[in-house]
Amino acid sequence: MAISFELLHVDKHTGARRGRLHTPHGVIETPIFMPVGTQGSVKAIAPDDLRTLGAQIILGNTYHLMLRPGEKLVGKLGGLHRFIAWERPMLTDSGGFQVYSLAQARKITEEGVAFQSHLDGSRHMLSPERSIEIQQTLGADVIMAFDECPPSGSERSYLEDSLARTTRWLGRCVKAWRPDGPSALFGIVQGGTHEDLRRRHAEEICAHELPGFALGGYAVGETPEAMYASVAFSAPLLPVNKPRYLMGVGTPIDLATCVGAGVDMFDCVLPTRTARHGLLFTSEGRVQIKNAKYVEDTGPLDPKCSCYTCRTFTRAYLRHLFVAQELVAMRLNTLHNLHYFLNLMAEARAAIERDAYADFLKEVQAVTARTPSSRSS
Amino acid sequence: MAISFELLHVDKHTGARRGRLHTPHGVIETPIFMPVGTQGSVKAIAPDDLRTLGAQIILGNTYHLMLRPGEKLVGKLGGLHRFIAWERPMLTDSGGFQVYSLAQARKITEEGVAFQSHLDGSRHMLSPERSIEIQQTLGADVIMAFDECPPSGSERSYLEDSLARTTRWLGRCVKAWRPDGPSALFGIVQGGTHEDLRRRHAEEICAHELPGFALGGYAVGETPEAMYASVAFSAPLLPVNKPRYLMGVGTPIDLATCVGAGVDMFDCVLPTRTARHGLLFTSEGRVQIKNAKYVEDTGPLDPKCSCYTCRTFTRAYLRHLFVAQELVAMRLNTLHNLHYFLNLMAEARAAIERDAYADFLKEVQAVTARTPSSRSS
Repeated sequence: MAISFELLHVDKHTGARRGRLHTPHGVIETPIFMPVGTQGSVKAIAPDDLRTLGAQIILGNTYHLMLRPGEKLVGKLGGLHRFIAWERPMLTDSGGFQVYSLAQARKITEEGVAFQSHLDGSRHMLSPERSIEIQQTLGADVIMAFDECPPSGSERSYLEDSLARTTRWLGRCVKAWRPDGPSALFGIVQGGTHEDLRRRHAEEICAHELPGFALGGYAVGETPEAMYASVAFSAPLLPVNKPRYLMGVGTPIDLATCVGAGVDMFDCVLPTRTARHGLLFTSEGRVQIKNAKYVEDTGPLDPKCSCYTCRTFTRAYLRHLFVAQELVAMRLNTLHNLHYFLNLMAEARAAIERDAYADFLKEVQAVTARTPSSRSS
Repeated sequence: MAISFELLHVDKHTGARRGRLHTPHGVIETPIFMPVGTQGSVKAIAPDDLRTLGAQIILGNTYHLMLRPGEKLVGKLGGLHRFIAWERPMLTDSGGFQVYSLAQARKITEEGVAFQSHLDGSRHMLSPERSIEIQQTLGADVIMAFDECPPSGSERSYLEDSLARTTRWLGRCVKAWRPDGPSALFGIVQGGTHEDLRRRHAEEICAHELPGFALGGYAVGETPEAMYASVAFSAPLLPVNKPRYLMGVGTPIDLATCVGAGVDMFDCVLPTRTARHGLLFTSEGRVQIKNAKYVEDTGPLDPKCSCYTCRTFTRAYLRHLFVAQELVAMRLNTLHNLHYFLNLMAEARAAIERDAYADFLKEVQAVTARTPSSRSS
């Protein structure tokens, strides 16, 4: 196996887990938040910034990369790590989520999903075999099974058909996967917020001896409370000795809550996307930096933050940059938000180690009570 | 005087000068290229990048800053250096050039220039007194006289009237200036490519004992050859013991040629603006990074360059970032182009010190022969 997971400690009073994931490109201390590098770049920042931030692993999106620049080119140039000059661990998704959310003229069959590119309308097909082939060509340390992510509010009958197909597709993914290669395959458990469906699907998916497992189909429209309850139910259904990844989640309070349920890995575009829209997460709550109340504010964005943005600039200047549409605002805001999310996970790890996770969760709830739930992409 | 200039050495075979400008925010080794930070930000990069690049001084634009965020706010928050977190030297222009090139409903009178903001149509007035007041409030180390920059191809009679007015305006600038303050006032010599007008205007402008002098009105439509000939004529008309600044110029070959004529300081948006359009200056000539020939190019952008971009990424990846419209492409391209311009000046300084400037100029001519002349803004 390309990767291995050590479960170092479980918090005495919650389900929060402190772990360590060994990969071909280095060690990841969990729980961890993974910045999203959609088309081979975490938007607005470069690898030097990511290293400074202490990012341990970043994502790439199979859907975007297969369309542009194309996985064959990336493979020919030495793989995704070398192409984007990121020597630490990477994870790629299966492409499924973007096919459902971005692509045009989508048609799902037993074989896979036919679709047209949102870039130029060109016709493509993603199937379990094709997704695994693309991901193995890209060469990420962790690759994801090709599943269907049914829309929120799907009929139970549709959901049952979809889950059965995702289970059959996992069998095909496993066959297409080279377990002795550098990419570790994770299976994905779906089932919406239905406990019986989650339980049955977890049994089907976890019947495969895979290096890790994910929970998909959350943060797609359900309330945060419904998501928290369902994740608390579903996470313990996954093997205790394998990493557990909650896909496309979420806000700080989403992360903190679901760590408490035993989740080890998260990804979301929320910190990077909101940064580009001037929404910043701080120890004092959310800051809309364009707000007129910051015009003369000479304080740092977050007085408790040690990121470059907070160490160097005033809220007044950050507001000016954003209002004047200066490009550097995108970078400075992104640096801060990612630092906030990565630091949140670092503090979570420390709290688990001293069996104080319940207190940590209460602190996060106090700060981010007003933060709306996230939407993944 | 807030600043002082040491003329360290003049190249034995050309007019190229090696100098040192002492300012309240540090020493500037000349000849120097000054990156343009239009509205309080060198577009796409942050002060950490500028320090890494070794930028010694950057510009701010009075026109942009008076409109947004307004010089009163910047003054109240401690001045431009503190506002933008740049502790090294700064220079502000007078606002005149942008009033002529950007503003709407412009009307020039003896009093000054009435105009409407390009941002919101609001009505404003810039005069010699107002420009100096704004610049002293911003607090740059070098501030510029408020002049008229007549359009290229102006009738000689218009030019003569304009030059006389600029001379009268300089008298008013000098009266409005506080010579014991932290900002050193530079006068500006105009006159297009007319030798007699340049000579007469230089005499009028340099009659004032000012800390430095500039040549304005170049790179506004004349051929590079006409500009080179006129600068070669005009630069020696300026005092030998004061810094000489050629405003809004230019391409690498423009800079190298005019250093040879005895110019010490340059600014231009060319490297930063072209970077954002994917035009990159290299030791092998100009690179249009979106060009299909770079799709599989695993070489660095410039094999002789030591900037972060060239040390880290392939042309193939830089092309992908640009084509995919990733924000970080703007930063990486800007880092490279500014490094190229700043390094060009560092090499020029070294060449002057060893009396080898003529050879250096020939090398630059060989590399950049195909580079079109610049346009300032």
